[in-house]
Amino acid sequence: MLGTGLIGLFYTRTLHGQRNRDRVQVVYSRSEERAKAFCADNDVPEWTTDLEAAIAHAETDTVVIGLPNQLHEETVELCAKHGKAVLCTKPLARTAEEAKRMLDTVERAGIFGGYLEDLVYTPKTLKAVASVQAGQIGDVLWARSRETHPGPHSAWFWDAAQAGGGPIVDLGCHCIEIIRSYMGKENRPVEVMCWTDTLVHPIEAEDNAIALIRFESGAMGQFEVSWTFRGGMDLRDEVAGTEGTIWTNHFLRTGFEVFTSGSGGGYVAEKAETASGWLFPVGDEVAELGYVDMFTDMFDAIDEGRAPSETFYDGYVVNAIIDACYRSADSRRWEPVQLDDWRGAGVPRIARERREHDGKTVIKEEKMPDGRSKLILKDEATGEFVDVVS
Amino acid sequence: MLGTGLIGLFYTRTLHGQRNRDRVQVVYSRSEERAKAFCADNDVPEWTTDLEAAIAHAETDTVVIGLPNQLHEETVELCAKHGKAVLCTKPLARTAEEAKRMLDTVERAGIFGGYLEDLVYTPKTLKAVASVQAGQIGDVLWARSRETHPGPHSAWFWDAAQAGGGPIVDLGCHCIEIIRSYMGKENRPVEVMCWTDTLVHPIEAEDNAIALIRFESGAMGQFEVSWTFRGGMDLRDEVAGTEGTIWTNHFLRTGFEVFTSGSGGGYVAEKAETASGWLFPVGDEVAELGYVDMFTDMFDAIDEGRAPSETFYDGYVVNAIIDACYRSADSRRWEPVQLDDWRGAGVPRIARERREHDGKTVIKEEKMPDGRSKLILKDEATGEFVDVVS
Amino acid sequence: MLGTGLIGLFYTRTLHGQRNRDRVQVVYSRSEERAKAFCADNDVPEWTTDLEAAIAHAETDTVVIGLPNQLHEETVELCAKHGKAVLCTKPLARTAEEAKRMLDTVERAGIFGGYLEDLVYTPKTLKAVASVQAGQIGDVLWARSRETHPGPHSAWFWDAAQAGGGPIVDLGCHCIEIIRSYMGKENRPVEVMCWTDTLVHPIEAEDNAIALIRFESGAMGQFEVSWTFRGGMDLRDEVAGTEGTIWTNHFLRTGFEVFTSGSGGGYVAEKAETASGWLFPVGDEVAELGYVDMFTDMFDAIDEGRAPSETFYDGYVVNAIIDACYRSADSRRWEPVQLDDWRGAGVPRIARERREHDGKTVIKEEKMPDGRSKLILKDEATGEFVDVVS
Amino acid sequence: MLGTGLIGLFYTRTLHGQRNRDRVQVVYSRSEERAKAFCADNDVPEWTTDLEAAIAHAETDTVVIGLPNQLHEETVELCAKHGKAVLCTKPLARTAEEAKRMLDTVERAGIFGGYLEDLVYTPKTLKAVASVQAGQIGDVLWARSRETHPGPHSAWFWDAAQAGGGPIVDLGCHCIEIIRSYMGKENRPVEVMCWTDTLVHPIEAEDNAIALIRFESGAMGQFEVSWTFRGGMDLRDEVAGTEGTIWTNHFLRTGFEVFTSGSGGGYVAEKAETASGWLFPVGDEVAELGYVDMFTDMFDAIDEGRAPSETFYDGYVVNAIIDACYRSADSRRWEPVQLDDWRGAGVPRIARERREHDGKTVIKEEKMPDGRSKLILKDEATGEFVDVVS
Repeated sequence: MLGTGLIGLFYTRTLHGQRNRDRVQVVYSRSEERAKAFCADNDVPEWTTDLEAAIAHAETDTVVIGLPNQLHEETVELCAKHGKAVLCTKPLARTAEEAKRMLDTVERAGIFGGYLEDLVYTPKTLKAVASVQAGQIGDVLWARSRETHPGPHSAWFWDAAQAGGGPIVDLGCHCIEIIRSYMGKENRPVEVMCWTDTLVHPIEAEDNAIALIRFESGAMGQFEVSWTFRGGMDLRDEVAGTEGTIWTNHFLRTGFEVFTSGSGGGYVAEKAETASGWLFPVGDEVAELGYVDMFTDMFDAIDEGRAPSETFYDGYVVNAIIDACYRSADSRRWEPVQLDDWRGAGVPRIARERREHDGKTVIKEEKMPDGRSKLILKDEATGEFVDVVS
Repeated sequence: MLGTGLIGLFYTRTLHGQRNRDRVQVVYSRSEERAKAFCADNDVPEWTTDLEAAIAHAETDTVVIGLPNQLHEETVELCAKHGKAVLCTKPLARTAEEAKRMLDTVERAGIFGGYLEDLVYTPKTLKAVASVQAGQIGDVLWARSRETHPGPHSAWFWDAAQAGGGPIVDLGCHCIEIIRSYMGKENRPVEVMCWTDTLVHPIEAEDNAIALIRFESGAMGQFEVSWTFRGGMDLRDEVAGTEGTIWTNHFLRTGFEVFTSGSGGGYVAEKAETASGWLFPVGDEVAELGYVDMFTDMFDAIDEGRAPSETFYDGYVVNAIIDACYRSADSRRWEPVQLDDWRGAGVPRIARERREHDGKTVIKEEKMPDGRSKLILKDEATGEFVDVVS
Repeated sequence: MLGTGLIGLFYTRTLHGQRNRDRVQVVYSRSEERAKAFCADNDVPEWTTDLEAAIAHAETDTVVIGLPNQLHEETVELCAKHGKAVLCTKPLARTAEEAKRMLDTVERAGIFGGYLEDLVYTPKTLKAVASVQAGQIGDVLWARSRETHPGPHSAWFWDAAQAGGGPIVDLGCHCIEIIRSYMGKENRPVEVMCWTDTLVHPIEAEDNAIALIRFESGAMGQFEVSWTFRGGMDLRDEVAGTEGTIWTNHFLRTGFEVFTSGSGGGYVAEKAETASGWLFPVGDEVAELGYVDMFTDMFDAIDEGRAPSETFYDGYVVNAIIDACYRSADSRRWEPVQLDDWRGAGVPRIARERREHDGKTVIKEEKMPDGRSKLILKDEATGEFVDVVS
Repeated sequence: MLGTGLIGLFYTRTLHGQRNRDRVQVVYSRSEERAKAFCADNDVPEWTTDLEAAIAHAETDTVVIGLPNQLHEETVELCAKHGKAVLCTKPLARTAEEAKRMLDTVERAGIFGGYLEDLVYTPKTLKAVASVQAGQIGDVLWARSRETHPGPHSAWFWDAAQAGGGPIVDLGCHCIEIIRSYMGKENRPVEVMCWTDTLVHPIEAEDNAIALIRFESGAMGQFEVSWTFRGGMDLRDEVAGTEGTIWTNHFLRTGFEVFTSGSGGGYVAEKAETASGWLFPVGDEVAELGYVDMFTDMFDAIDEGRAPSETFYDGYVVNAIIDACYRSADSRRWEPVQLDDWRGAGVPRIARERREHDGKTVIKEEKMPDGRSKLILKDEATGEFVDVVS
């Protein structure tokens, strides 16, 4: 386990949670003090402040990277050098170029490269994606993903130089991969339109962004990210298809509601803003946020010699979309997603079916309040639209 | 009352509902059959198929236009000619140019011109806007409005030539005015970025659209409209400010949930798709959709000799934003909102405050799970970010 | 309008709201100061501190009683004396005996007697009751109604001698009538089992109660009332039938959610406990709480010479059930509802249908996860239960 | 694993799920066919139709009982005979007497006896109980638990002779233990009032029941169970305390909403009634229903040589409360909970605090809509109640 910040803590808690058979053997931190405290708190046997030593350690089968973004590339190179399986936290890199080099490093070395995109693995998302793949909502038309909260917990996130950007990099990476999961990974992201602004915080990076991602099928992805949201952490996704709709809420409204005058006290949930009044905790935070299913997929994949659902290649695609977002925010127009290495099969355009009635095109069929049926028809010859009630 | 379609029905039901003192005296329809049936069903004394006769009628104080979009302009001219107060359904016109002529007509004639934008008047929106104006969520940063459903009920809506467009014109006009209400009407809409596509229906107009509207204050408006949504009619708005957040749901999730095996049967709600399983009706449809409060404002305004909250000028601004949406969808870039006649006072840019601690900029202050406080600081001299836990 | 407390204010606001044609002409209060202030705030022309004068006033067509419970009877007698229509706030009386005398007074005098039970008239309840009557949920099996909040706003409520009891009288009267509306008013309430306790407040009356009301059809009514609930005012009803289920939430979760840091401030909603954090206002309080539809029914009934949906007789039945509740809380067993004057037609026992398959009773038919169908059958001869999967 | 029904399947799926280190080695079923299919489907190495052989098997460390209620006792005796740890599904027994014998058997043999009460272990319940124990809602006043659905999946459940009763035994056992968890296990359940009826199904057992459980502290537990509910499986709990309120929804409203026209198809969720329209799945069924955390506690307890949170003693207390429910349904009055072996420490009555102001008792303090504060006071000498606004 490389890193003792919030993400390292969540990862370790997940790995050591329930009756899991996988264990963290050695933890790396730049600070001896934090490393020792982490071992004590989380029942980890060994620690080191030497990054390469942690990776090369004889008991280390798999390296889990929970370090700031600017350290990902060099760490992956060390994993490649020592032939260790590597699981890297999100975002994979700060740019697609960096991500591509990391992907090449892993593939050249023939090591396992897992991309730790947890929100794709939330139990609701897994089941919803399965529903979509089973055809329950027909062809996907839109997919929207939102992650907003009042801002991250560590200083380096706020420094665009270290992080590679603001909430697009921090949160948009989740949204993009959720959207891709609903769209289907064979469905090429073609172009991006993005707005960013720094409305509240005294920083260089954006603190709010909205992006549209147009896919090859014609379907539209949309994400909304913010570091200025008030009220906790809002994690919601929506998918609209020709035959249905799916709404998932992962955090603020999950059927768990608490009112407290403030007596008692204690930790409520990640990014909660208040400790009294109406609060909305989640049941099991690491399960709800996808960490449990994510590590299950990763370690099962390693055991079974298969690729996990989220690979370094996926991380690279995410970074390519993020790059297009920033280019679009600058150019103020749609920008192509530059993917030199596109591995998807390609998908057809969403089909618009034409149904006929009396030689006219059926636009809509509906039941009226009084029980009768109404057909809205178009005469393609004359271009005229008529209602037919029966 | 001009028009006997769904909107004319809703309007009349509202006016004749509860203990209201205002009454529909004469109804106009192109069809004698529909006019007669409407009178019988709604207890209206007189009908005519002569538009001008209805307007000129001695008992007509106020004309309510519930006609297709392409008939609005000529009808308003007739109202001006006969000096009658006029309330026109949304959208005011098909283009800003047309709307501007209608606005000029009304102002030149000195008649009352009310813009029947009902969703700005939903009880939740009225209270939420009052909250925003009272400062409960601080400065508005984002406002989003969504209206999606499976498509309108009358043939003319589907004909771009008659309607002036697709769901942007039909539904986006609501969303735009809701967003403006939250932003403040002095806050100039500067430019628009819009995506449209025709994904499902065999029509010329778009059936899906997303637009971003940038306001003078820096705040961002966002709307999502669709004629392909499955599951009913989704009417939701969200506003995010520096001090809070507001979410309103006007239709599909309002605390009224019904499961039925399908026995009994009957009308569920506007745009409901099914008559069995889990259904989500609303209590009082005309009240929840804003019709009641809208007509109260209109008739009170007429009685008191003041302007209503929604005037022909507002309708003109909405059309100007819609025009910019279509231009942007074509040009694929941000397009300015062209308002030759801008009457707003203007507002300043959202202020980004800088707070100092030990000579450094405070980026964030937060409580950690273990109860300690953390400051994230930026040293403006060196550009370095640090965490300080205490 | 008799009374200038919270209820008098809500009533007057309702009558003077929207484009209503009914007006409050004269208001009575025991205090001159409060009467004057009330007139000024609510645009009421006249006031008096003489109860009989207000009733006898030439402009008074209808008397609205918004006074404490112990004053209802004498006021109704004055209305009878002066031959004025009377609308009395809930509960009608403190006991069934008192209610019966009031009912007799009104019927003897031949005056209109409306029972102002607002929560039966909430828009959701009206529509839900209509659904039940239309058969959408089949035979009603259970109906539950809850009203809980942190306690009432005026001193007299807390005094059992004046009020006639605690939350059973104050809130249970609503719940009972909601339950009766779902059960059908022909369905006789047979017996009651009730628990009460005074858990928190230093008062003589109960501050918490739960009651079960068994109806003639076999259906069970259940109410839960409390003056110790934390978090606002919880108004929820549920009905379960053989073919469906209805859940209504009238106050705390109606699709309107606000988070505020506390800036701005202002009135949130009746019984709201906090002014910051997550708040749950309602759109239009007097409409959502049923006042609008209630007065519409009352004045329409007066105009049309018919009985309103809620009469003094209904108020009497409610009081009879309340009396049974208190008797049961004392005796700790089921107590009959004593109704000397029962006017309902009577209803049959809910029918348990028996369906046969191969000569056996079908207990259940269901679809299994693997898609197959399963029948659970009972052999009435042997008493044996078997699963048959096909 | 003894039993291959729905519960055996859920248990095995849980044990074999994620990266769990515990495995099912041998499965017992009365039917060879079901046993073989179960092994194949769930990757279980061995099967047998000989109950004692499964228990005595050399690889069996722990026996998991997933058999019908009437087989629990003899199976536990076999576990005692062979000295194997035993985990028994809920309810422990059909009566408290049977449960007591099983408890004695386990304690005499000195074997580990875990009570598999899953719903006490749902992630939300675990966190909510921790909140209550931390004092976040003050003293518990009420706790309500509901489990209702359209009826169980296997024939034996419907046979009162085999099952020991209807939904009180099947579902009430969950509710009772959830209520006890909120009340605190030292808090003695004193007496019970229960209503049962058979309203719909052609069976001897009840199909609906409501019970009140009074605890030593004065707090009231309330449960509602039904085999006739329409709309899926409703699993909701509520706790009200002097300082707060907790609402948990485990199944039908958990932030996961799907609308589908019915295309695609597939398994939705346990007890779901429809495959089209609005559906409400849960993310990870075995996690949400508590199976994961339950087995973690059980196996951790075995490893650590401690008692689990839910023991055979808890199962015995649950059965004693169930017995009191049936006695009360018969006698139609409050019945004492007969616990010959009560091991709780006992708790004091909920304290009603008295606060003084000017020598009077403060009944309530509240903020008025106009911003002023109001005190409601009682003069204990005169018994008079007054409002003091300041």
